[in-house]
Amino acid sequence: MEKMELTILGCGSALPTTRHNPSSQVLNVRDKLYMIDCGEGTQLEMRRAKLNFTRLGHIFISHLHGDHCFGLFGLISTLNLLGRTAELHIHSPYGLEELMQPMLNFFCQQLTYKVLFHPFDASRSAVIFEDRSMKVTTIPLRHRLPCCGFLFEETEGLRHILREMVDFHQVPLYLRQSIRQGADYVTPEGVTIKNEVLTRPGDPARRYAYVSDTLPLPSVARQVKGVDLLYHEATFADEEAARARETFHTTASQAARLAREAQVGHLLIGHYSARYESEEPLLEQAQAHYHATTLAHEGLKIEILPQAIKLLSPDGVE
Amino acid sequence: MEKMELTILGCGSALPTTRHNPSSQVLNVRDKLYMIDCGEGTQLEMRRAKLNFTRLGHIFISHLHGDHCFGLFGLISTLNLLGRTAELHIHSPYGLEELMQPMLNFFCQQLTYKVLFHPFDASRSAVIFEDRSMKVTTIPLRHRLPCCGFLFEETEGLRHILREMVDFHQVPLYLRQSIRQGADYVTPEGVTIKNEVLTRPGDPARRYAYVSDTLPLPSVARQVKGVDLLYHEATFADEEAARARETFHTTASQAARLAREAQVGHLLIGHYSARYESEEPLLEQAQAHYHATTLAHEGLKIEILPQAIKLLSPDGVE
Repeated sequence: MEKMELTILGCGSALPTTRHNPSSQVLNVRDKLYMIDCGEGTQLEMRRAKLNFTRLGHIFISHLHGDHCFGLFGLISTLNLLGRTAELHIHSPYGLEELMQPMLNFFCQQLTYKVLFHPFDASRSAVIFEDRSMKVTTIPLRHRLPCCGFLFEETEGLRHILREMVDFHQVPLYLRQSIRQGADYVTPEGVTIKNEVLTRPGDPARRYAYVSDTLPLPSVARQVKGVDLLYHEATFADEEAARARETFHTTASQAARLAREAQVGHLLIGHYSARYESEEPLLEQAQAHYHATTLAHEGLKIEILPQAIKLLSPDGVE
Repeated sequence: MEKMELTILGCGSALPTTRHNPSSQVLNVRDKLYMIDCGEGTQLEMRRAKLNFTRLGHIFISHLHGDHCFGLFGLISTLNLLGRTAELHIHSPYGLEELMQPMLNFFCQQLTYKVLFHPFDASRSAVIFEDRSMKVTTIPLRHRLPCCGFLFEETEGLRHILREMVDFHQVPLYLRQSIRQGADYVTPEGVTIKNEVLTRPGDPARRYAYVSDTLPLPSVARQVKGVDLLYHEATFADEEAARARETFHTTASQAARLAREAQVGHLLIGHYSARYESEEPLLEQAQAHYHATTLAHEGLKIEILPQAIKLLSPDGVE
């Protein structure tokens, strides 16, 4: 199965603590890195996690609150000092370029590479990125300002060749790629060999959903239906439900009920309020509703599998 | 002796590493905190060092390079979330307010306190701050853009009362403060008792100099003459002297020779290039010229004494 790994760089909320950085994570899909949110200190956490800066091409910003984007300046400067030449693409709700450009013009006057901004309308769901291996769709959220989550969908894998059948029918080497893409094979004698005879299905396309700061929303549950892994903010414990509503955030129980309703493979919670010295109570409250729940923490690396996850570090095998 | 402590929050250079943060330090003078430079991640290091945010009133920025000021946004946001009401003063070379204000207007719309910018002309030395306990003078430097160091001078302490003499001459209690300030005492019989008879000199006024990114300058050696502690950048080892000159930086040996020439009490070096995996060679090169040299590192806390220092943490007694 192709690589699809998630690394948590920060899972605290607006007030950073010595235990949690502001929001950021990196999704590795087939060795391309996609960053999601970029709070202060993200570049350092990326170094700690030994993620390769050169493999980063796209950054997705969920909303224009400082704890989700103040790390961009330092990261962009560092990539410049490292002599990057490849374009860097930043996808965000409208307004970020206008805010950042004057600062970039001054602090990063001689950029060795281009920073390209791709603003989107956070009020509706749309495909904002697509390449050969992945598609990213926005998930409209309800926070104190325009805010989106992101649905990452792996492209369906090519079908797997059944070697003995291909050999038996003497399919020429140059046709193998089209066979993997689903084509039938026509023999020199004009006999059509159906693709299903020559191949078995490719790996299932995995899906990861990142749900940033928001009130819990039924529309989100519908959009993330059946994803393999859901990261959902769970800023507060049940005791602070009123505070959660007031600040447009979600409680641990609400996140877990949404995960259960959406029948996701696994739930990862984060964006913890600074008031908690331990997140175990949040985990307990979530697991009461949906057992397949894990607490995010800085440095956590997860392999995303069909309807399951595998911990890679620091709690599992690298 | 009154409190005068320096805490290093960051002593790396432009490229942060997992070993060093970008520039920042905090000088504690009689329990008021003065921050010097504020690179990305400063607020977190301040928490780690257990420095009290409410005691911070003034921030001094040496120059407008990102590794010396990108942490301001996060710090200002956090102070806001903590409900600060006291004004925060930011002293810097011209231009910072114009760069920061649009971002602050957007990201910190409802500030609970005022941020006041105090720009200065980095090309000449001037007193930019003064209160009852301290005076700050700029030290013009030579870097790739306007840049200043800062000379912190403690106000001379009040004279110490010689209790037995004051008792012997029956000086009334209400006159003690003026006696400490240097006044003579005139007895009811009209006899003048000289102040020197009643008191001994106050504690010597200590001086700390922070010398940020610069070529080594004779004018700096003159201005920091005899300070109790000098922090001087030492970005490069001697082997990179050409690179240092090219990028307007100083080598470890150059910093130490300047310290020796200026007869400072103690030298602290920092702003290390990311190329060094260990700074021991920098220390050796510096100590060959000036033995009383210490390597800065994150979390280092130093008590500044007359012509000496005392390590408080993490290497000494708290």
